[in-house]
Amino acid sequence: MLPSSRHWLRIPKTYKAAVYDKPGQISIKLEELPTPEPGPGEVLVRITHSGVCHSDLSVMRSGWTGLPPCPVGQIGGHEGVGIVQKLGPDCEATSVKLGDRVGIKWAAAFCGKCAACKAGFDGHCETKKFSGFFTPGTFAEYTLAPANYVTPIPANLSSTLAAPMLCAGLTSYSALLKSGTSSGDFVVVSGAGGGLGHLAIQIGARGMGYRMIGIDDASKRSLVLECGAEHFLNMRDFNDTTLAEEIMKLTGGQGAKAVIVCAGSNRAYAQALPMLGFGGTMVCVGIPEGEQVPISNATPGALFAMQKRIVGSSVGSQKEAIEVLNLASMGIVKTVCREEKMDALQGVFEEMSKGAAIGRVVLDLS
Amino acid sequence: MLPSSRHWLRIPKTYKAAVYDKPGQISIKLEELPTPEPGPGEVLVRITHSGVCHSDLSVMRSGWTGLPPCPVGQIGGHEGVGIVQKLGPDCEATSVKLGDRVGIKWAAAFCGKCAACKAGFDGHCETKKFSGFFTPGTFAEYTLAPANYVTPIPANLSSTLAAPMLCAGLTSYSALLKSGTSSGDFVVVSGAGGGLGHLAIQIGARGMGYRMIGIDDASKRSLVLECGAEHFLNMRDFNDTTLAEEIMKLTGGQGAKAVIVCAGSNRAYAQALPMLGFGGTMVCVGIPEGEQVPISNATPGALFAMQKRIVGSSVGSQKEAIEVLNLASMGIVKTVCREEKMDALQGVFEEMSKGAAIGRVVLDLS
Amino acid sequence: MLPSSRHWLRIPKTYKAAVYDKPGQISIKLEELPTPEPGPGEVLVRITHSGVCHSDLSVMRSGWTGLPPCPVGQIGGHEGVGIVQKLGPDCEATSVKLGDRVGIKWAAAFCGKCAACKAGFDGHCETKKFSGFFTPGTFAEYTLAPANYVTPIPANLSSTLAAPMLCAGLTSYSALLKSGTSSGDFVVVSGAGGGLGHLAIQIGARGMGYRMIGIDDASKRSLVLECGAEHFLNMRDFNDTTLAEEIMKLTGGQGAKAVIVCAGSNRAYAQALPMLGFGGTMVCVGIPEGEQVPISNATPGALFAMQKRIVGSSVGSQKEAIEVLNLASMGIVKTVCREEKMDALQGVFEEMSKGAAIGRVVLDLS
Amino acid sequence: MLPSSRHWLRIPKTYKAAVYDKPGQISIKLEELPTPEPGPGEVLVRITHSGVCHSDLSVMRSGWTGLPPCPVGQIGGHEGVGIVQKLGPDCEATSVKLGDRVGIKWAAAFCGKCAACKAGFDGHCETKKFSGFFTPGTFAEYTLAPANYVTPIPANLSSTLAAPMLCAGLTSYSALLKSGTSSGDFVVVSGAGGGLGHLAIQIGARGMGYRMIGIDDASKRSLVLECGAEHFLNMRDFNDTTLAEEIMKLTGGQGAKAVIVCAGSNRAYAQALPMLGFGGTMVCVGIPEGEQVPISNATPGALFAMQKRIVGSSVGSQKEAIEVLNLASMGIVKTVCREEKMDALQGVFEEMSKGAAIGRVVLDLS
Repeated sequence: MLPSSRHWLRIPKTYKAAVYDKPGQISIKLEELPTPEPGPGEVLVRITHSGVCHSDLSVMRSGWTGLPPCPVGQIGGHEGVGIVQKLGPDCEATSVKLGDRVGIKWAAAFCGKCAACKAGFDGHCETKKFSGFFTPGTFAEYTLAPANYVTPIPANLSSTLAAPMLCAGLTSYSALLKSGTSSGDFVVVSGAGGGLGHLAIQIGARGMGYRMIGIDDASKRSLVLECGAEHFLNMRDFNDTTLAEEIMKLTGGQGAKAVIVCAGSNRAYAQALPMLGFGGTMVCVGIPEGEQVPISNATPGALFAMQKRIVGSSVGSQKEAIEVLNLASMGIVKTVCREEKMDALQGVFEEMSKGAAIGRVVLDLS
Repeated sequence: MLPSSRHWLRIPKTYKAAVYDKPGQISIKLEELPTPEPGPGEVLVRITHSGVCHSDLSVMRSGWTGLPPCPVGQIGGHEGVGIVQKLGPDCEATSVKLGDRVGIKWAAAFCGKCAACKAGFDGHCETKKFSGFFTPGTFAEYTLAPANYVTPIPANLSSTLAAPMLCAGLTSYSALLKSGTSSGDFVVVSGAGGGLGHLAIQIGARGMGYRMIGIDDASKRSLVLECGAEHFLNMRDFNDTTLAEEIMKLTGGQGAKAVIVCAGSNRAYAQALPMLGFGGTMVCVGIPEGEQVPISNATPGALFAMQKRIVGSSVGSQKEAIEVLNLASMGIVKTVCREEKMDALQGVFEEMSKGAAIGRVVLDLS
Repeated sequence: MLPSSRHWLRIPKTYKAAVYDKPGQISIKLEELPTPEPGPGEVLVRITHSGVCHSDLSVMRSGWTGLPPCPVGQIGGHEGVGIVQKLGPDCEATSVKLGDRVGIKWAAAFCGKCAACKAGFDGHCETKKFSGFFTPGTFAEYTLAPANYVTPIPANLSSTLAAPMLCAGLTSYSALLKSGTSSGDFVVVSGAGGGLGHLAIQIGARGMGYRMIGIDDASKRSLVLECGAEHFLNMRDFNDTTLAEEIMKLTGGQGAKAVIVCAGSNRAYAQALPMLGFGGTMVCVGIPEGEQVPISNATPGALFAMQKRIVGSSVGSQKEAIEVLNLASMGIVKTVCREEKMDALQGVFEEMSKGAAIGRVVLDLS
Repeated sequence: MLPSSRHWLRIPKTYKAAVYDKPGQISIKLEELPTPEPGPGEVLVRITHSGVCHSDLSVMRSGWTGLPPCPVGQIGGHEGVGIVQKLGPDCEATSVKLGDRVGIKWAAAFCGKCAACKAGFDGHCETKKFSGFFTPGTFAEYTLAPANYVTPIPANLSSTLAAPMLCAGLTSYSALLKSGTSSGDFVVVSGAGGGLGHLAIQIGARGMGYRMIGIDDASKRSLVLECGAEHFLNMRDFNDTTLAEEIMKLTGGQGAKAVIVCAGSNRAYAQALPMLGFGGTMVCVGIPEGEQVPISNATPGALFAMQKRIVGSSVGSQKEAIEVLNLASMGIVKTVCREEKMDALQGVFEEMSKGAAIGRVVLDLS
């Protein structure tokens, strides 16, 4: 199954990559670049698959306020799976070997010393080596990665299914972990049919024993129920008040133990707080576009009265990445996705920018 | 030290109590009432001390939106300490004995079955038997209390110092427990010189090994530093931006691990979020008066970027009450207070309503 | 579906019960007893189903050292499901209503004040009101139970499947909760095909996202794999050394994150510790018969070297009972069981005492 | 206070170190060695202080079964404090700067990828780069250390007091963190007057709000009480039974919430379990010499009956090291120690091997 030892030692002088070539625009150019040498502690990875995430589109379009623009000429992508082809010096302390199949995540590296790393959030390492943004990403045949931060891929999981776990799966899983819930608790997901939401439903229902309730528009009903939701609510059938009332009814009057807001909409945030029962937690995952506004009903009194909590969550740690890949290898979580080749990437981004519901695209780079 | 067995079995036919006698006004009347008989599972407590809490003033004045008014004729008070004088039927399953010194809290009882109790928040039991509000409170020589929910008072702690632990101490302690902090972390308290704040500083600094930073106005500097704060900031010396910058500087650039907002001010809430470092927690304790407004900078993006958390906290559980009383018995936390007799209560409330900084008043009812 | 209001208000003067009638022997007598009146805080439950647990056999035979014998004339049983037929005085603070379907557990009641209750272990309340041992149990048409401690049964779960959750399911679930594991971790169950073990496999695999490995003898292979185990090991195929080596191999060299020892065998305990990886936990559930001996390789050095933990676990709390019933109502856990009538109970115990592998028996008392 | 910039850039060609020069014997030789160059990710540290730990003696004498002997010629020591003098290549991702004062711990490095690191136990990294054992240690004027794993020393803490925190302080603190206790709980320390025990008493009493009970022999009474213990028990005054009874009495009948066994004695382990109350935890810290024997009363039944736990604990993580240094900088914990020069080391080890109670020795290497 693994490439023969001869194959993966024969490394070409150049490799093909997809780079962003116009500032702030959807514009991909394929380039032939010289294959780099791994430095101390680095490995050279032959990438075979890379998921295409909505964040890649935001990076390319400089869509996030508060972050510098992505440099022109950068290679995008942060859900890469590939084979370790060469070890740089000083990799002996790590467990990575030639021929290992590994994953590359949004956080390409971690320092272990910054405030984020110290607090256990290595996925937010303050050195900000973000794949496909501040360091070359995974829309390429080769990339360098630190030996101590690539993620091992379980043997029985296909690279196509592994790739989306490295960002979408990890983000959904980490959000559920932060929700303060126990087996049997009711957990609501708003945006349940989306890229993150449908994974959160699966992981919650099949991997954690939660009773999942999905909210989205009618076209997502069958997907959400197939993912394991106990109930689906069409958001068009309710106003803010009746939606909370319906959640109260479905949960036997107790309210949800957690609401995972995957929908990037200010209204979804405002709807979430009244759905929560005693000691319940709202997890903020989706980021509304445009000007940032406060969660409109998050007053101290509203949180105080029922001891509610609000938690921000994005991506996740290496430990969580390993765990969610295990869940995928057990068949508990599986992304709805389709494969494309590298030269289709421009078209994929254009489709994505129109909001077409296309499922996850995974580039086959092999 | 304890009353002799003869004494505490001689129960008078009537007892004196302070009742609220005009709706929504500061008006206390002393009344002589018939001593009640404990029902199944209840004990009769001879109250010797009761703290006077700012919440008593709010209850009397019907100052909280969303809650029904306190009935005229109600006995206020929810920080009571006294001696068990009589056991009702069916108390044998509990460990309470005649002559025990026990405490009565805001939550006078718990059902063990509602959503709040199930989630471990027995101090918010949905049966809402709140002392001095929906059930007779502790500004009285006698009261009834459920044998399974009174709080044992440690032998070497005076009743005067025990009383304020049952609400103010408990509230401060529970807020610190919810702050997600470890020994050595920096914790900021806004309103650090107030009734709750000065206890939070003491418990954090001496009982939990936190590095406390207090914010208040200049008059509170020496109190806050004596309570164990490592730094004191006069809030008048800073604007919102420079205040957060100063916290960053004092914490070596990392930011606070938690901010406990004891000040009931919307501005204090808005100031708190930027003080937090990675994965930090804002705990909402003080409730601003007037119309409830959302925390002005609590956008999903602001929480998401540094994985911050916001938690509502009020009072606490029986388990936490026992723990904070232990801390008091070890000398770790000590309320700044003065004693008064029951007939001074009207004056105490008037003083309180003017915002005079008087320290905690504890009624001596013995 | 529920009995009509007339029916459940017509309470007979007497009811049938199975009592233990010879000290220390397997001897059941059916008796007709006067229906009791619920006292303060109690409800009268019309029991329709009761699981028969191996502990009932131990109680009847006075098989546990360190505990007093069960009184002759006691009614056994502690996995009861039935309908609330009458409320005693002072039940209004609880959420129990006439006609509710509720469960009765090993701990018939809790005081909320003893060291066990305070520590969150209400299932071990020191008042020791154990159903079917120190208080009348559930092998009967009627029993009394405290309104604040009966467990609500989810609407869509049959009483037959609910009954074994109240002890066997609860015990398995609580043991998994104490195992300190995360989704995707490897968890070994020894005695995986037994009454507790097969439930632990199901809950771990389907409700918590663990990778379960079951150990038992060959006859249990298909049951354990159907329950969701990823691997089954026939204990006869290995010695102690090769068994640990096999676990190391199956877990990719890391060792198990937890071993749940359901088998009541000293050898199973000795085998468990070397299976654990770094920071792993052994949970003690099965109690070996005969003289109690220490876990033979539990030296301080063995625990210290890899930061291992050993935890004792039995039954569980009300909160956990509600959670495991939710898992059952979601179809995640389902006991292999068969139904019998009350007059078959003597035969069931005789069969059980011979160790015949009969699956759980649930008495149909309706 | 810090050396001038000129000084710390002038690095000598050779440096002085104390090496172990006879296998398994107490034999120290001072040598002059060539100053090494920091490799990628490494820093060169000018060591000014190093604690001398009992483990150094064990390493030198090959006193631990199951571990290979320390190579002849190795430099011992693993509690080093010094100044960063030179940065190797690729240190820019870390926050270490020239002139920083940093600490070196037992685990000299961590890989971030092994089972121990993944489980959060970086202090047990399986690459086993143990300072003064498998890599050159801190009894030397210079050493190399990985930039991402040295520990920052708080500005206001002297290097003499910082050094013992890096192993003894860390070990005591980590053991307390693993004890599952809350503020106000009773925690017993056996061996309370020893090198680890007296720090555990201080940290527990002053930094965590525990009620500490110390057990040791009579000569340690005043030290233990000065460290903050509420009670001291002379172990010669009790047999195993009466010792547990005394703990029950001192804790008001509840038993201890945790026992930290710092004494390396099988008897201390056997005594600890009966001292525990419901859900209590025994933490194994001291390792008895000679053949390893199981904890004599750790039967499954004994753990099961009261839901007790046994946890192995040694050293601690980088995060915990930072926390305990913070506690030291706040004055909460302070080692009883004396300073010596490097040429006194042979004598210090001889004294130590005779069990003389000498307090911690810290070498002044500046």
